[in-house]
Amino acid sequence: LRVLGELVFVGLGLFDEKDISLRGVEVIRRADAVFAEFYTSMMPRLSVQKLEEIAGKEIKIVSRQTLEEEEGKPILREAQKGKAAFLVPGDPLIATTHVDLRIRAEKQGIKTRVIHGASIVSAIVGLSGLQNYKYGRSVTIPFPEGDFVSETPYKVILENRVMGLHTLCYLDIKAEEQKYMTIKEGLQSLSDMEKRKKERVIILSTLVLGAARAGSNNPTVKAGYVGDVMNHDFGGPPHALVFPGKLHFMEAEALITLAGAPDQIRERLK
Amino acid sequence: LRVLGELVFVGLGLFDEKDISLRGVEVIRRADAVFAEFYTSMMPRLSVQKLEEIAGKEIKIVSRQTLEEEEGKPILREAQKGKAAFLVPGDPLIATTHVDLRIRAEKQGIKTRVIHGASIVSAIVGLSGLQNYKYGRSVTIPFPEGDFVSETPYKVILENRVMGLHTLCYLDIKAEEQKYMTIKEGLQSLSDMEKRKKERVIILSTLVLGAARAGSNNPTVKAGYVGDVMNHDFGGPPHALVFPGKLHFMEAEALITLAGAPDQIRERLK
Repeated sequence: LRVLGELVFVGLGLFDEKDISLRGVEVIRRADAVFAEFYTSMMPRLSVQKLEEIAGKEIKIVSRQTLEEEEGKPILREAQKGKAAFLVPGDPLIATTHVDLRIRAEKQGIKTRVIHGASIVSAIVGLSGLQNYKYGRSVTIPFPEGDFVSETPYKVILENRVMGLHTLCYLDIKAEEQKYMTIKEGLQSLSDMEKRKKERVIILSTLVLGAARAGSNNPTVKAGYVGDVMNHDFGGPPHALVFPGKLHFMEAEALITLAGAPDQIRERLK
Repeated sequence: LRVLGELVFVGLGLFDEKDISLRGVEVIRRADAVFAEFYTSMMPRLSVQKLEEIAGKEIKIVSRQTLEEEEGKPILREAQKGKAAFLVPGDPLIATTHVDLRIRAEKQGIKTRVIHGASIVSAIVGLSGLQNYKYGRSVTIPFPEGDFVSETPYKVILENRVMGLHTLCYLDIKAEEQKYMTIKEGLQSLSDMEKRKKERVIILSTLVLGAARAGSNNPTVKAGYVGDVMNHDFGGPPHALVFPGKLHFMEAEALITLAGAPDQIRERLK
């Protein structure tokens, strides 16, 4: 006897269809309807067909429009009458729009649950080797909107650095247009802002770390001075950037050994 | 022909043996030797026996002493001659000691790789409904060491709040003694500090969110004023705390709908 519907948010992780957890697989196999979105993050090698084989059923892909303008109605309709699963890249409630959907569901009396997944939020901490509790707030470097360029990323990096903290910069994606900002474009955007603001946030001697395809078998992680990282070949998306703050001894060792940073960064510890 | 050994760090996620990813299962099935540690985070329902059934082989549990005092030598020995997997709760390189092991391995010519897992770092963002990019730096509330009580958590919450940012407080664990700090103990520790510092970081009207057993089928998440949260029954460990900063409209809705915060918190938006 099923009196109430259920909506389970399932995290898909970072790279392909194998990043779902055993718990997530269990949920989608038991679900009456399975939805997925792929516009909030990019999973480079995910095959919907392989995911459908794992699920043993059809997966309906929903667009940004369905979620944001139509407020996820097709998902809520299924969740009202049975068990619906909603598959989301990364950890499923990092995107605000999904928190909104969860609130709507609960207000309609639909039970909600979360199956967490690996996320760039924690993956970058491990890949960088920089300590988790020394990351300040994170920020997204957006594509310019016409002539408008946001000053926020520049300001956040500066604020964090003053406190000795690291900054994770997400890079904008426009999935519908298949546009994924590269590390080079992100650094270029900040360098342009440097010319206007001149607060020495990003100059030649600034240390930066770029990471591409976290969660894959061959992520590219490279730390160094801005020019070196800008000209490094990171390969395909998604990309992310980290601006290190004050380095602890082991953090410097990690940047050198795991991310190819120059040996001289040890001098910065003194 | 295998000329170099390999060490793969595999994230186990949050709750039990089903939180490993399909990619993680693949790695441990192919590994020549599998190690695991369970002292950096607590996975409430993990069964090593069930994990061994999934892996199809024996899993050697390593202690804090083996990793920190003996510098992970038993793991590195196996990784030098073949494919070793090292299973870690959460996302595997959040704990600094594992970054240290990775550096050691690479310096010995052992190839290393990371299979990411769900982590409290991102899970708490989803469970709280508070926006990811508004979290400032996080902090651990430690058990007192004799008479010494750290001022750091109190200071970090204050610094973040001044900037309008949220603070995630991890709660200390001493796995060897099976001691896991509760939300109540964490709040009590901060209240004691309040009596000395008097900067109004934690007073009766302070809004706080507690979360227990993230990643389980029945996590307990409750937001409210300090006294209410302190007296709420959160059930078993692990616990975590969030101090919200300035709230956006949807964040307040999330705290009310998803975490049972009082309706009056909407007033704080004005």
